[in-house]
Amino acid sequence: MKNLIVKLGGEVVASPEMDAIAEDVRGLVQAGHRVSLVHGGGPQATALQKALGQQTRMVAGRRYTDPETLEVMKYVIAGKVNVDLCAKLLAHGVLGVGLHGASGHAVQAKRRPPKVMAGAGPDPVDLGLVGDPTGFNLPLLGMLQEAGYVPVLACLGCDGSGQALNINGDTVASQLAAALRVDALVLVTSTPGVLRDVADPGSRVPRITRADFERGVKDGSISGGMIPKLEESFDVLAGGAKSVVIVGKLGAGDLLRAVLEPGSAGTVLVG
Amino acid sequence: MKNLIVKLGGEVVASPEMDAIAEDVRGLVQAGHRVSLVHGGGPQATALQKALGQQTRMVAGRRYTDPETLEVMKYVIAGKVNVDLCAKLLAHGVLGVGLHGASGHAVQAKRRPPKVMAGAGPDPVDLGLVGDPTGFNLPLLGMLQEAGYVPVLACLGCDGSGQALNINGDTVASQLAAALRVDALVLVTSTPGVLRDVADPGSRVPRITRADFERGVKDGSISGGMIPKLEESFDVLAGGAKSVVIVGKLGAGDLLRAVLEPGSAGTVLVG
Repeated sequence: MKNLIVKLGGEVVASPEMDAIAEDVRGLVQAGHRVSLVHGGGPQATALQKALGQQTRMVAGRRYTDPETLEVMKYVIAGKVNVDLCAKLLAHGVLGVGLHGASGHAVQAKRRPPKVMAGAGPDPVDLGLVGDPTGFNLPLLGMLQEAGYVPVLACLGCDGSGQALNINGDTVASQLAAALRVDALVLVTSTPGVLRDVADPGSRVPRITRADFERGVKDGSISGGMIPKLEESFDVLAGGAKSVVIVGKLGAGDLLRAVLEPGSAGTVLVG
Repeated sequence: MKNLIVKLGGEVVASPEMDAIAEDVRGLVQAGHRVSLVHGGGPQATALQKALGQQTRMVAGRRYTDPETLEVMKYVIAGKVNVDLCAKLLAHGVLGVGLHGASGHAVQAKRRPPKVMAGAGPDPVDLGLVGDPTGFNLPLLGMLQEAGYVPVLACLGCDGSGQALNINGDTVASQLAAALRVDALVLVTSTPGVLRDVADPGSRVPRITRADFERGVKDGSISGGMIPKLEESFDVLAGGAKSVVIVGKLGAGDLLRAVLEPGSAGTVLVG
């Protein structure tokens, strides 16, 4: 029995490949593994902001969250994306239980104080109503999994006073992975893992160490959004998770293989 | 130990009285009662539709639900209102677990076929993606309650194929009350129960029988939205629930009294 977290970006939840992923989640649960899902909803939030005439303001790659933006995150992350994901799982025979941060206080968070961020100048950056996880309701997740359910966590936290807070989905998944000391954290993204040449999907790097990563950043072969994703993922390994796999577009059976045959799909991070 | 369902309209969740209600829910849970909450979100959905430039189309008092409207219901019912309600409970020390219909298939539903509706002419009315409950995941609710959680059901159902369906909140609460054969279903509304004279909040009717109700409809003292609410509520009594109470604006302790001292607040329906 493996303890697994699968993180799905908002663009993955909305993609046609969700059928293959839901089918593989069913296979994992049926084989007796404990699975939790974590999802984002960035593209859907941006689309709703646009429809409402709101500006999306990104600071150092993160969404500045004023009270109006937080309402959009409640609508999209806890609402639409969570419903669509649970409904898709249901259609494939998986009983996902959607949980936002305030639900059973599943994702406990505190507001992030202003801090200096790479790429955002020398001054501390205030991201507004953005939080960092301070804990998770692990007994609730465990109880649900023992009863055969798959927790489906929306990346929206809540502090003890009832203030909802926007949290990056990768951060929720990474910190939950560390808290659960999972056997594997699988990050499903829109890129097929780490590539030697970003223009060539066939140049997949099956395994990467922290030294490889640091070399890649220096020589420019690893860039953009892959840098914080890998940085956070190596921290998860250091924090107690046994493995992290970054995978891209998944066909039938790919998620199963990524988890059960490490190295066969995506990029496995080696601590 | 009493088994209770409290139904909160969307306007109640957004009102200042939610603090008193959350406090009373805490009192009920601490006294060992089993509580489930069901909520709507009609006013919030109408507001978001307006902000998005969508028309709200009501047919015989029900929201016509085209695919765009269903998206709004996911945003509002499963998202914003559920998050805000669970966050408010959390601030009062109650661990509510938010559940939309696809979450653990908590609210199983099938699409309502077109049917003739009172006040909507002689032809069958198609309400679009509107559902009727066909069942509830009672083991999931029971497991959560035994562990000290309060299920917080959003009135959004899902069929077995993963199609989400819009359901009236009173209907979810009523049918769940019948399925659980609850000791009391408490409907918290914006009116203070049934009034002898709608212009006089002091003319509260503490108890009403089905014969009183039918007489009231005939002589015009009961009218408007109170008619379907009472009709559905008497059906709940016939379906196995032990009592139904309709209460209005609640202050500190009012919900406790409504449940524990029947007749002291709102209107108790007598089967």
